[in-house]
Amino acid sequence: MKIDILSLFPDMFSGPMHESIVGKAIEDHLLDIDVTNFRDYSSNKHNNVDDYPYGGGAGMLLQPQPIFDAMAAIDETNQQLPKGRVIILDPGGKPFNQKMAENFASESHLTFICGHYEGYDERIKTLATDEVSLGDYVLTGGELAAMVMIDATVRLLPGVLGNEESAPGDSFSTGLLEYPQYSRPADFRGMQVPEVLLNGNHQLIAQWRRKQALKRTLQKRPDLLDKIKLDRKDFELLEEIKLEFSDDTDD
Amino acid sequence: MKIDILSLFPDMFSGPMHESIVGKAIEDHLLDIDVTNFRDYSSNKHNNVDDYPYGGGAGMLLQPQPIFDAMAAIDETNQQLPKGRVIILDPGGKPFNQKMAENFASESHLTFICGHYEGYDERIKTLATDEVSLGDYVLTGGELAAMVMIDATVRLLPGVLGNEESAPGDSFSTGLLEYPQYSRPADFRGMQVPEVLLNGNHQLIAQWRRKQALKRTLQKRPDLLDKIKLDRKDFELLEEIKLEFSDDTDD
Repeated sequence: MKIDILSLFPDMFSGPMHESIVGKAIEDHLLDIDVTNFRDYSSNKHNNVDDYPYGGGAGMLLQPQPIFDAMAAIDETNQQLPKGRVIILDPGGKPFNQKMAENFASESHLTFICGHYEGYDERIKTLATDEVSLGDYVLTGGELAAMVMIDATVRLLPGVLGNEESAPGDSFSTGLLEYPQYSRPADFRGMQVPEVLLNGNHQLIAQWRRKQALKRTLQKRPDLLDKIKLDRKDFELLEEIKLEFSDDTDD
Repeated sequence: MKIDILSLFPDMFSGPMHESIVGKAIEDHLLDIDVTNFRDYSSNKHNNVDDYPYGGGAGMLLQPQPIFDAMAAIDETNQQLPKGRVIILDPGGKPFNQKMAENFASESHLTFICGHYEGYDERIKTLATDEVSLGDYVLTGGELAAMVMIDATVRLLPGVLGNEESAPGDSFSTGLLEYPQYSRPADFRGMQVPEVLLNGNHQLIAQWRRKQALKRTLQKRPDLLDKIKLDRKDFELLEEIKLEFSDDTDD
């Protein structure tokens, strides 16, 4: 996969994009990342990239010229690649989710346009195939949002995740929150691992985990339960859980 | 504000936490960030921090001992500060939003625990005041999630945002998506700035912007409209917008 990033702060990418899984994917030649500072493409004699908004208002807007010309240069460099997706990071965009990460992971070329300051001149958005928001919060720029989307995408590329990180029981892959997990020691400063996980009965363990995942989802993210298909056994477990709640007990 | 971060990949923070608004806040002595590698606190002779999950399953879990001991050392260092919030980054946590950023910004000490691999031994969560998720997607670690939350929080600290970035019309502060904005030139390669923004009639501009914000929110994020208080004029504008949609026209 080739990833292009347009940003005024290329140094922000130095740490995160060379550590952890993304750095490993680059080392293994599964991924290539180019960061373009679109200030270098400003035709303004002071290399300005922003100006006041028409109609008044606080803050400065990114102007179209530097980003349009940086994109043209990137297209020139990537002629041999399919055009792929051009993702503009914007709080008004479609909220990013796991499905979107899966779609991005199926592309061979992604381009991220990272805004800064008060926002973009609207005409810049005509360059994008996707307007995406990381979530309902405001960031000072699109850089961290792009890094998050790149991390979520790259870990899905074949060959990137080692066994250490591989995760068939990943949150969201089942549509439920993950059940509680425990590692050694069985007793840590008085806090015990639940008995059922120590006795080696795989059927009981699977049932306990499913119930805990349902319970946790019901408590913390009941909205997720509406989005997945539950079987009859799940409904029985949910009934049990609701009874336990009404008894004010905890297992 | 003092921020402590527990992470196995401290170098990930080098770029993002020294550029842009966060770096400026550190320079201006409004913010101090310490990153602690909890591997340094492992009592294991190989400095291991992870082990297999009890009950079987893929992936490795972070063990409690290194993180508990790193937290104790951080508490020791920060004795003069109020305990503040301890935020554990976990996809099963409460989804991060602007309100949470505002709450974090009112604290004087925040600690972020960044997981990695398949997840945490459940007992680690007893250290946290908040379990928070960045969104419904899976990342390889909590580092980028922590950086996003720190960026969203730090920009709200008094004195951090300069005029260039200040944003009273910020997305989410009105509860609506932001209206389209335009900067110079008025004609960019044939794409025109809407006439109303050029004529200097502030009342018409304000009304156009409100209508565009409502229209965009209705189109892209109708869920947000249920969460805010609209006045009678807004309802009239929404009626106009719906009529325009049904006429298949665009203004």
